[in-house]
Amino acid sequence: MRSRRFVSMADTENGAIRYEVTALNFSGSISFCTYIDGDIKNEDSNYDEKFWNILDVNASEGGAYLESQTKKSDFRVGIAMKYRTSVNGKKTQSKPEVIQLAKWVGNKITFELKEGQTACMEKYVGVTSSLNYAADQLKSNAEELASYAYHKGFDQLFTDHQKKWAEKWVHSDIKIKGDVAAQQGIRFNIFHLNQTYTGEDERLNVGPKGFTGEKYGGTTYWDTEAYCVPFFLMTAPPEVTRQLLIYRYKHLPRAIENAEKLGFNKGAALYPMVTANGEECHNEWEITFEEIHRNGAIAFAIHNYIRHTGDKNYLAEYGIEVLVGISRFWSQRITFSEARKKYVMLGVTGPNEYENNVNNNWYTNKMATWCLQYTMESLEYVKQNNPDRFEELVTKLKLNEEHETQRWKDIVAKMHFPFNEELQVHMQQDGFMDKEQLMAADLDPTQRPINQHWSWDRILRSNFIKQADTLQGMYVLEEEFSTEEIERNFNFYEPRTVHESSLSPCVHSILATKIGRIDKAYEMYLRTSRLDLDDYNAEVHEGLHITSMAGTWMSIVEGFGGKRAYDEKLYLNPDIPSQWEEYAFRITFKGNDLEVRVSETEVEIISHAKKTIQLYVYKQLVTVEPQQSQTISR
Amino acid sequence: MRSRRFVSMADTENGAIRYEVTALNFSGSISFCTYIDGDIKNEDSNYDEKFWNILDVNASEGGAYLESQTKKSDFRVGIAMKYRTSVNGKKTQSKPEVIQLAKWVGNKITFELKEGQTACMEKYVGVTSSLNYAADQLKSNAEELASYAYHKGFDQLFTDHQKKWAEKWVHSDIKIKGDVAAQQGIRFNIFHLNQTYTGEDERLNVGPKGFTGEKYGGTTYWDTEAYCVPFFLMTAPPEVTRQLLIYRYKHLPRAIENAEKLGFNKGAALYPMVTANGEECHNEWEITFEEIHRNGAIAFAIHNYIRHTGDKNYLAEYGIEVLVGISRFWSQRITFSEARKKYVMLGVTGPNEYENNVNNNWYTNKMATWCLQYTMESLEYVKQNNPDRFEELVTKLKLNEEHETQRWKDIVAKMHFPFNEELQVHMQQDGFMDKEQLMAADLDPTQRPINQHWSWDRILRSNFIKQADTLQGMYVLEEEFSTEEIERNFNFYEPRTVHESSLSPCVHSILATKIGRIDKAYEMYLRTSRLDLDDYNAEVHEGLHITSMAGTWMSIVEGFGGKRAYDEKLYLNPDIPSQWEEYAFRITFKGNDLEVRVSETEVEIISHAKKTIQLYVYKQLVTVEPQQSQTISR
Repeated sequence: MRSRRFVSMADTENGAIRYEVTALNFSGSISFCTYIDGDIKNEDSNYDEKFWNILDVNASEGGAYLESQTKKSDFRVGIAMKYRTSVNGKKTQSKPEVIQLAKWVGNKITFELKEGQTACMEKYVGVTSSLNYAADQLKSNAEELASYAYHKGFDQLFTDHQKKWAEKWVHSDIKIKGDVAAQQGIRFNIFHLNQTYTGEDERLNVGPKGFTGEKYGGTTYWDTEAYCVPFFLMTAPPEVTRQLLIYRYKHLPRAIENAEKLGFNKGAALYPMVTANGEECHNEWEITFEEIHRNGAIAFAIHNYIRHTGDKNYLAEYGIEVLVGISRFWSQRITFSEARKKYVMLGVTGPNEYENNVNNNWYTNKMATWCLQYTMESLEYVKQNNPDRFEELVTKLKLNEEHETQRWKDIVAKMHFPFNEELQVHMQQDGFMDKEQLMAADLDPTQRPINQHWSWDRILRSNFIKQADTLQGMYVLEEEFSTEEIERNFNFYEPRTVHESSLSPCVHSILATKIGRIDKAYEMYLRTSRLDLDDYNAEVHEGLHITSMAGTWMSIVEGFGGKRAYDEKLYLNPDIPSQWEEYAFRITFKGNDLEVRVSETEVEIISHAKKTIQLYVYKQLVTVEPQQSQTISR
Repeated sequence: MRSRRFVSMADTENGAIRYEVTALNFSGSISFCTYIDGDIKNEDSNYDEKFWNILDVNASEGGAYLESQTKKSDFRVGIAMKYRTSVNGKKTQSKPEVIQLAKWVGNKITFELKEGQTACMEKYVGVTSSLNYAADQLKSNAEELASYAYHKGFDQLFTDHQKKWAEKWVHSDIKIKGDVAAQQGIRFNIFHLNQTYTGEDERLNVGPKGFTGEKYGGTTYWDTEAYCVPFFLMTAPPEVTRQLLIYRYKHLPRAIENAEKLGFNKGAALYPMVTANGEECHNEWEITFEEIHRNGAIAFAIHNYIRHTGDKNYLAEYGIEVLVGISRFWSQRITFSEARKKYVMLGVTGPNEYENNVNNNWYTNKMATWCLQYTMESLEYVKQNNPDRFEELVTKLKLNEEHETQRWKDIVAKMHFPFNEELQVHMQQDGFMDKEQLMAADLDPTQRPINQHWSWDRILRSNFIKQADTLQGMYVLEEEFSTEEIERNFNFYEPRTVHESSLSPCVHSILATKIGRIDKAYEMYLRTSRLDLDDYNAEVHEGLHITSMAGTWMSIVEGFGGKRAYDEKLYLNPDIPSQWEEYAFRITFKGNDLEVRVSETEVEIISHAKKTIQLYVYKQLVTVEPQQSQTISR
């Protein structure tokens, strides 16, 4: 038996399966059953309720059609199939058995095979949804699509599919020499990231499990901005990331509604923690209205996009509206403490979800003031460079710039950031040092992961950290901190961190390289590199960690490769784990394509750009001509 | 039509209905349908699922039986009925229609009435449950009970019922002159408290809605110890309250299990927030393992019982085991902050549930150290007075007194209590003054109650208080605080309190009287006195506020009456609202029954005790001989 199946990267509404059976040591009859099954049970259903109504079933000789509808949201999907059969490459004409049940349609085909003969079936599917077609057009279009694929043929469909993938690999591949397992691990990740999101539709986003599992319901989290955006920014055309930003831009009215439900007003926007269409889909208070740092990641992604692509027009056209909404939220969410004579942010949950409802989470406070500052700079930029648009915004957003930014400036100037003078370390939150200070290394190994062995009570009250958000803040806003400061905080927080979020180790790996601890960085890298491939946590049945796969990619490019982009410039500071001989990656910066190869002794920069490129390698300016390379000794 | 129905206070497994219809201006036929309906839908069912299976239905001429079973817990109830009919007092013999459906049994009886005649039906019911009978004995016993009532007859059943009630009224009535509405309000409450709990069965307790509504599912809360115990201690024989304590004693193993589930060990006990059988029934983390002050109320009820009844044997026999379990919990739950060099209690929710997951809730810290102290004193008492029992306890509880109490003493000595030096006020929790300090009086009245108008986000982050737990602590442990201190804290907290718990105003009313603000006390009293009768919050359909009714009683006796019991002595310090002419109440103290009458000009103490009683009125020692009275001028 041989089979090949794919959902085409080129013909995105088509899929195909080729199924071959060779009678090696017998002659006799063999039946194939080709079908569409609408009787699907989803994993998170309550009381075994099924989510789909079946609206249309139709089976005929040589094809079938099934149309289904989600019960609550009336999302409709039409699936049409056609197939051809052959024996030893010769088309067969035997009459199939046509089967049509209430939720199931198919054909059963019987072959009479002689010993040595191969029966083959090629099934072509066209899929349409009410996202793209009028409800009454689903069927005709699905059937046309199935027919199109049928006539194009399996081999041509597959060749087009391969070609499209090859283009993606040119730009996103990472090559690792001397470590086959690492090479396989990172390619597995890159494949899945590109498989999950192509950037062709601004209404789509990246779920933490992609399409590999039903956990998290395919909804969107801050993972997209914090982890996936850096990957797509570096490996795909700018339009791909831009679509992810537009996704949030289009949801801005919903984010404003979401904030209004909580009592905010005047255009304050709180993006949902979890969403499918802009509405909040999570249902726990300690997350929905306390884990508000997501607003920071969404704002930062705009900055990140612009600094990598140079597309400053995005700011005036779209970004600024999102930034103003988010800044208005922070401005209302932050209150003034008369007792401290400082601004404070009470009752939040940081990325370290092993703390709930804390006061003055350092990361959230930091991101909030960054947002306010960046929004003010952006407003200034738009005013200077696009005064007409600025006037338009004043009206559209009911913007009173002077009045609003006055408070924003005051908050930036007087925000309270918890700090421990004795240790000279930023404190994750108020009162963190009141906790018993224990080290993760001293935990009984049989008690780990603690989230599978400890009560939530014990976890919440312990000082153990799911992912160190203070360090996350230093990663995001690295320019603001000296290496010594990062090192001091890393040495305080990392030993208290149990890394029980798949999003945790990558950030720690990147910072560990930054402070010269390449072995620690490699240890952290290993915790994510083959997380799903080797099923470390015995949870792959729930789906792959798609968004943390982007984190693994970051561990290599931003961690070992030391890639940075700020002040309009590109920086590389490559290191290499002693376990590797060499590694190479590609990055795109402001439309220019560079290949970076790092070995123990040298760094080679190969330009695929059309113009002269300047970048900093180990803080030294390097100039590379088009299609040329430069080698720097390590 | 005339009807009378009652569940008998004397024959506690019987109920009866008398239904009379007089044909005033016609002659004709009238049908009565008498039935038992097992097809009950409970209000908190999911997906309209019914909770009951029907195991047996049986209808015959003159009677019927129905047996049902709860689906999950196999609790069984058998109900048998018999009835008799008459016209103008003369027994009728007409043949009924016997109706038996799958979940419904009954008889339909038709009378031919002449103008002026009265048809009467008396229905007698016997109810048995698997709490008291073997499953296969439910039917025979229910039928015997119905038969017993049938033969006793309606009038005799009612007379016995009345007699039993009259005894209760003698001891628990409060008489108010000059305010009919207040008189009706407090009697309504006293009736419901006695109707709900009689103290005959140690397996039963008091649900916040009693039997008047399904909300809270009939389960037990800390309301029992904090509010109902004081009522029953003063108005009923000591055995009644003792049963409430035994209820918790019997649940001690479950409380230890509950703590073990959270990671505590060595006999630490955490009583559930909500329970039916000792297991935790609540399902929100911020309540189940954070609202742990309930442990304090359960310990304090032991002390309260002993100081009122003098029954010190209870301590050695039962109380001490509960106290040790609770103290072990506090000892493990409290941790040492190296930063403060103080013990702290992190991540709790106080009685003020408008704050969640706070650090060092003053009330909880206070109750915890009180528990440790009282447990140590109690251990000492048992050791001195009952050394055999003490030795038994050492074995049973694996008690290492010296070792364990060493830490308890250290906690008592070094506990952190948030305090604001500038205001000289105890702080509800760490960081309370970081909140915007707003006053309830300044709230837009259309926004109240805030829990019906504001998001949970807004409520949690505001400084508004559901019930002021700092003041609750001062109420419970009043001896520890000077009147000035109470006044200072009252003046700080009460204006920030929205009293959106029905348990809130009574405590504030009591303290307001204490600090000489009788008008404020009366204002607070009015908020609870007719809460259900006048349906202030349009929520009576959910059931009555049974436990807060005890609080209203306390507002009069402990508030206006100034009743206190400490250091083995009884104190009265009566005041009277200007709206009242006179009020009178009865209290029991160490088995002696006193009547107290308060008017604008005098206080009269009438003794119904068998021996000479000494008490303090306005701090002066008063001696009252048996069946005598003493009058003190005001």
